[in-house]
Parts: sequence; structure tokens; C-alpha cells
Amino acid sequence: MQISPLIEQKIRASFAAQTMMQTLGATLDHLEQGIAEISAPILPGSLQQQGFAHAALTFAIGDSAAGYASLSLMPEDHEVLTTEMKINLLAPGKGDRLVARGRVIKPGRRLVIVQSDVFAVAEGQERHIALLTGTMMPVCLT
Amino acid sequence: MQISPLIEQKIRASFAAQTMMQTLGATLDHLEQGIAEISAPILPGSLQQQGFAHAALTFAIGDSAAGYASLSLMPEDHEVLTTEMKINLLAPGKGDRLVARGRVIKPGRRLVIVQSDVFAVAEGQERHIALLTGTMMPVCLT
Amino acid sequence: MQISPLIEQKIRASFAAQTMMQTLGATLDHLEQGIAEISAPILPGSLQQQGFAHAALTFAIGDSAAGYASLSLMPEDHEVLTTEMKINLLAPGKGDRLVARGRVIKPGRRLVIVQSDVFAVAEGQERHIALLTGTMMPVCLT
Amino acid sequence: MQISPLIEQKIRASFAAQTMMQTLGATLDHLEQGIAEISAPILPGSLQQQGFAHAALTFAIGDSAAGYASLSLMPEDHEVLTTEMKINLLAPGKGDRLVARGRVIKPGRRLVIVQSDVFAVAEGQERHIALLTGTMMPVCLT
Repeated sequence: MQISPLIEQKIRASFAAQTMMQTLGATLDHLEQGIAEISAPILPGSLQQQGFAHAALTFAIGDSAAGYASLSLMPEDHEVLTTEMKINLLAPGKGDRLVARGRVIKPGRRLVIVQSDVFAVAEGQERHIALLTGTMMPVCLT
Repeated sequence: MQISPLIEQKIRASFAAQTMMQTLGATLDHLEQGIAEISAPILPGSLQQQGFAHAALTFAIGDSAAGYASLSLMPEDHEVLTTEMKINLLAPGKGDRLVARGRVIKPGRRLVIVQSDVFAVAEGQERHIALLTGTMMPVCLT
Repeated sequence: MQISPLIEQKIRASFAAQTMMQTLGATLDHLEQGIAEISAPILPGSLQQQGFAHAALTFAIGDSAAGYASLSLMPEDHEVLTTEMKINLLAPGKGDRLVARGRVIKPGRRLVIVQSDVFAVAEGQERHIALLTGTMMPVCLT
Repeated sequence: MQISPLIEQKIRASFAAQTMMQTLGATLDHLEQGIAEISAPILPGSLQQQGFAHAALTFAIGDSAAGYASLSLMPEDHEVLTTEMKINLLAPGKGDRLVARGRVIKPGRRLVIVQSDVFAVAEGQERHIALLTGTMMPVCLT
């Protein structure tokens, strides 16, 4: 389901304020209620020792996609913080870019349980490379 | 306990090959058997939306410190891969730099259980901001 | 997809050998390739301090369902061991019984990534109370 | 540091109300501020398929020890709930009994980060068999 223009604007402003996302070349590609998709190229400066995408890149976009999926369900004056996130790495991050799809498993007033799947895209084919599960904490800003 | 010059050289070459570590400005500051310390400045390009250190930076150095702690106990022809890592975030990453201290909890032929603590350093004071626990898988390269 | 009678027999013998499953009154209700379902009544002796199902019951059947989902994909002479399992608790275990549905996310020769969802059943209605994600390690017995 | 008699009484009443602890034969052996120790015999009804302590027993006492470590730091009218707990299994639970030592890593008003180590005791020797890290949520009862 579509989100309101105000919430979308808030999320896009938050994303733009994360300088790490710019460093990694990440873009926020899709948003709906309880769902967010972020992708990033595997830049020359984002590699691990074998030349594949670094797990920190996988974590960065997986965690952020889960966070914005949560934020899409929050009132306008709320922010969310990751309290814990576990990443299971399924396969090496080989290819041109990574795509993270985050979703809310269980919304809550005090805690939101989230999940993200991260895929490596090589020659147009997606491969599932990581599963993240975690907890977001809503914080009221007013 | 000190590690052999050959193992140290292997680890330093691996660290140098991780371009993500250079992007984040991270340095490998200390190595001994089962222990590794990595630190990084909180660069203008490593921030989350509130201007603090991004969790991906915390994850990056925490995970790598745990990985090299494991690698310090491995034979020369082995590599390690993270199979899973959970991060509990304890406090915001405020300050000048982050320091990650990784250690091996339980070495093993098939799996190595590791832990890292990450601290934010502000005005010379360390504050514990994250706890990581995870699993490394040894891989024989020959 | 159906599993072979030999593999099913092996799994049922393993389940029967887990005396903890009998203590908790658990039954293995369904098996197919990469999937297993285990349920248990919320017995008077399986409660936490508020009178709801104890998280150890939720963990017990969620972990076992994930383990047997993995074992359903293994050769006959293999066993699996849980190496790590994270449980996110979503809601209290109120009701008559719990049902755990485990599935394989990513099979592998060295490690198998698994997930389980646990539901509380009250008056015929299921409520999602826990999400487990973890890693199983295949062990060859011969 | 010692806890007040009122808090100790509250914790002991809570422990006694957990019928699962009685089913498993567990006892609350030690309490101080931010620390709790729980042990349990490896009963004939607490086994996995190979005849060792079931991971659900390890989880049960590890999680409870972490919970009571948290509760020892809370005001009298508070309860705590586990929101997430990850267990890394280090070695099989062989021996006569298991001992779990829980401690608070980071207290907080909204969330408490905890850790437990579980040991198997065989012929008077302790062996580290599991590491748990998790999050407790304080709940005000009044």
C-alpha cells in the first residue's frame, strides 16, 4: 500500500542525511507501507579481501531497508533506531550491484521486528546472499 | 601471545586488500593470538541521519576485528569467512573515532565463535557502543 | 515435495530419541523436503511466570522444526547440529498449543541456513509469536 | 553487590512461578546486582537425540539467568520480558548438570542488553557449551 507524501518526504530526507549511503552509492528505490528497497553498486571502494562486496555494504543496505520499512508505518514525528540486527551470509557478493528488500514482520509501539533479504545482481540475475533479522525501536521526536 | 611474522604478514595483506577498510579510513592497530583491534575515524562520509557514526561503520570494524582474531589462530593456508554476525547497539556512535576489539571465544576446526566490542572515543574517553557475536568459517585455500 | 520413506523413518527415530520432546508433549506433525512442522500443547509444566508458554518451549519446537527441515534434505548417513539460533519473540504464548513451522532458507554442504515461525493457537486461531533464524551444521556419521 | 531483600523475594517468587523451571529441575543458585546463576541437572527427560542435554535446556536456563540478572537492577514494580535472544552452541552438553551465568552488559530504561554463558559440569569440571546474547524489555506493572 502506498504511503503518504509527507511520510515519503520524511524518509527521503532521512536517507539523504545518511552520508554513508552516499559514500556507498546507495539509492532508495522503492517504498510502500512496511516495505523498502535500497540498492547499491559494488564500487571499487566497497570490497572485501577477495574482491567481492564487503559484508558491511550488505549490512548497510539491509539494515537501512529494514529501518525505512519500519519508518513507513510510524507517525510523522517518529524516528526509528536499530537495537539489534543479525545477518546470516548465504553466498559471496559477486556481481555488479546489491539489492536489499526490507519488510516489517511485526509492528509495535515499543519495538518493531524486521527482516531484510539482500541479493547480488550479476548479468541481470539475482542471487540471495544474505538474510537479516532485527529489532527497531521507535523514538518520538516531539 | 604474539603471532608469527608470517601470519601477521598474511593478515596485514588481507586487511590491505579490503578496499572498504580504506574507504572507511580503518587501521589494524593490534594483533595477537586470538585478538585483533581495528579503529576508524568517524569521517564526514560515514554518518547516519543524526550525524553519528553509521551502524555499518560499527559493523564493518567489529566484524573485521573478529575475523582477524580468528585468522590469527589459523594455519597459513587458511582464510576465514563470516557466516553470521549479530550486533547489539548499546549507545549512539558519538565522538571522533570508533575502536573495535575482537576476540575468539571458541576456536574450532569447522567453526570459530567470536565476539567484538566496539567503543566510541570522544575527548579521550571510551564508551561501549556495540557488542557483536558471530561465527567464522575456516576455509582451506590449498 | 515428499521425502523418501527411509529419510522419514530416520527423522522419526531421531525425534523419538529426543526425550525433551516427550517431556514437552511435542509431536512431529508434518515433513516434506526442506519443511517440518512440530506442535506441542502448553502443558501446566511448560509455563513462564505469567502463566503463558515458556520461551524455552517456543525455542524447543522452533529449533527442532528447523533442524528436521534441514535433515530432510541430507543423505541418510548425516545428522545435523544447531550451531546458532536467534529467536525474536513477537507476542506472548497464550492459548492451548504452539505450532512451529521450520524451513530451509539455504541448503549447503557445510552449513544450512534455516528459519522457523512459531504460532500460538487459541480457540482455533493462530497468532505469530516468534521468528527463529539459525544455522545447522551437517555431520557425517560414517 | 548485594540486592535488597525485597527485590530478591520478588525474583524468587517469579522463579517459583515458572513451572518450566520445575519441569527441568532448575534452581536459582546465586543473585547479585546485574548477575544471576541458574543450574539444572541433565534429567533423563531433558535430552536430545544423542543423549546429551537438549539445547532447549541450555536456552531455558541461559535466558532465565539473563532475565533475572536484568530484574535485579529494576525497581520493584517492574517485570522484564525477553525480546530477542541468540544462542551460539560451542560444545555438546555432556555431563551431570548445566550451569548458566547471566549478566547485564548495558542497563537501560527502555532496553537491557544481556549475556549468559552456559557450562556443562562433568566430574566436577566445567566446560563452556553456550554463549547467549539478548535484549530484555522492562515492563512497568503499575
